[in-house]
Amino acid sequence: MAADEVGEFERIRRFFAPLAGPGGLGLTDDAALVDCAPGHRLVVTADAIVAGVHYLLEDPPDLVARKLLRVNLSDLAAMGARPLHYALTTALPPELGPDWLARFANGLAEDQRRYGIDLLGGDSVGTRGPAVLSLTAIGKVAEGREIRRCGAKPGDVVWVSGTIGDAFFGLAVLRGAYPDLAAKDRDQLVRHFQLPDPRTELGPRLCGIASAMIDVSDGLLADLGHICETSKVSALVEMGRLPLSPSARSAIGSRLDILPQLAASGDDYELLFTAPVDATDAIIALSSAVDVPVTRIGSIYVGTGVRLVDADGLPVPVKAVGYRHF
Amino acid sequence: MAADEVGEFERIRRFFAPLAGPGGLGLTDDAALVDCAPGHRLVVTADAIVAGVHYLLEDPPDLVARKLLRVNLSDLAAMGARPLHYALTTALPPELGPDWLARFANGLAEDQRRYGIDLLGGDSVGTRGPAVLSLTAIGKVAEGREIRRCGAKPGDVVWVSGTIGDAFFGLAVLRGAYPDLAAKDRDQLVRHFQLPDPRTELGPRLCGIASAMIDVSDGLLADLGHICETSKVSALVEMGRLPLSPSARSAIGSRLDILPQLAASGDDYELLFTAPVDATDAIIALSSAVDVPVTRIGSIYVGTGVRLVDADGLPVPVKAVGYRHF
Repeated sequence: MAADEVGEFERIRRFFAPLAGPGGLGLTDDAALVDCAPGHRLVVTADAIVAGVHYLLEDPPDLVARKLLRVNLSDLAAMGARPLHYALTTALPPELGPDWLARFANGLAEDQRRYGIDLLGGDSVGTRGPAVLSLTAIGKVAEGREIRRCGAKPGDVVWVSGTIGDAFFGLAVLRGAYPDLAAKDRDQLVRHFQLPDPRTELGPRLCGIASAMIDVSDGLLADLGHICETSKVSALVEMGRLPLSPSARSAIGSRLDILPQLAASGDDYELLFTAPVDATDAIIALSSAVDVPVTRIGSIYVGTGVRLVDADGLPVPVKAVGYRHF
Repeated sequence: MAADEVGEFERIRRFFAPLAGPGGLGLTDDAALVDCAPGHRLVVTADAIVAGVHYLLEDPPDLVARKLLRVNLSDLAAMGARPLHYALTTALPPELGPDWLARFANGLAEDQRRYGIDLLGGDSVGTRGPAVLSLTAIGKVAEGREIRRCGAKPGDVVWVSGTIGDAFFGLAVLRGAYPDLAAKDRDQLVRHFQLPDPRTELGPRLCGIASAMIDVSDGLLADLGHICETSKVSALVEMGRLPLSPSARSAIGSRLDILPQLAASGDDYELLFTAPVDATDAIIALSSAVDVPVTRIGSIYVGTGVRLVDADGLPVPVKAVGYRHF
């Protein structure tokens, strides 16, 4: 054992027990208790991330923790669920000592407050390989109100929240690209990549409005493809309608040929959803109420597949569909 | 990519989607749905295992899968909960290809049938380090009937199910010890280590009978210590009462000085529980009804700590309390 290494029980007591809610029983039992509100179902999702694959070794541990939590909250939001609790397992190499863990736990604590969730329990083990962090998030949704991927119908409108491509540029900046971009823009893009903003208010309030929903993690076109596949429909996305942030516009400059790549890039954790045309007013009102912009980017048709088209309605070739890790 | 490597979507579709229950939605959505029976609470536990730490690289993948599932079911049983579902994340190195995954999934399928549970979903990622497998199990217990660690009272009897020490000897045999032991005994001990038998019937039926419960994972004395610490009591265990299997007796032979080590050894996944003296008849009847032997091994007292005593009531020194991994 290294001098600064702490054992499993000590790790749990010092860093994780303070994060436990009432159902976590102080992390002193074999399992945690979860209440289920009458008329509701629980919603469960899990994601694992690996150091050097899903995040960089030098990334601040609090941001790693918060991103891990947020990508799971984004999955819950995409089902229309409100977040409640999470369980966490960490497999950490010996070089990640108490300092790293304390900062990691601080990140969790900060986002627990922000999203009103708590830790149920988990496990803390050692590995000789890169860190593997696995999180299972639990939310709730009123029975029968969950939003699936399979409900899109021909004639529906395709919507996306927020902006697309910021995470793509953020990762590029972290890798040394766009050195001439203003510092403010660089910071905002990196921030988007490191700390997505899961749409935990918008998602649940789309229950009864959206016909299908997913979050943009693999890439807008790939994720829309998942909706089309399970809904047995096709989709058309108008490239000119992709919502772009001012920072992303600065990064693009006159290089508009990068737009198809943005449509294929992932990690934005925006909500991508379909809805009947007559829901348009309700969606715009909701967007305003929760202060999350939404944009119409296309439509659903019979058939299969997802097409990206330009202003003239001509198909735009897309090279790599889907998110690629480091 | 190696020729036999398969991508995340393909891994999920081929190996994990067939394991999903109705709430898993075919693993084609962002999250899974879990119903909660009226008057019940859900019980959640998570464990992670690392190749080369918690299991050997050459262990059969189906047994690795089944042990991972079973140690989590054991945690649920220790709360008095019946198992329902699980979520799984796998971080696998490239050398574990489709063949390893198919055998791993077969092990899960076999135990899903045995325990009447199904897969909710999860995640499948790559790592350049050793495999890390993380499982979150979900069970249910009637409201207020859960068995905590904190309910042991002075005067209670300490009970343990099954036998103790088989996993200790099983691991020793795998490491090359006990070469002169009969093949049948060696096989049985290894089997106990590789494939514990979680007490999923006994645990839930102890609700309303046991005052505190835990499963033996860290080691009998260490785990009883967890009960004592949270219940603010002390315990005394009579070494001569430790239940031993015939195979363990053969391994011990005349070397009775190994008994304290067995009391400290873990990974048996038996239920260790306390109950008032007047529950004795109910416990013996229950043991017979579910066909799981139980043994009185000690008593609860005021004070702190756990003492192991010999036939004369004299304290037995114990060197290493708690389970140590490879």
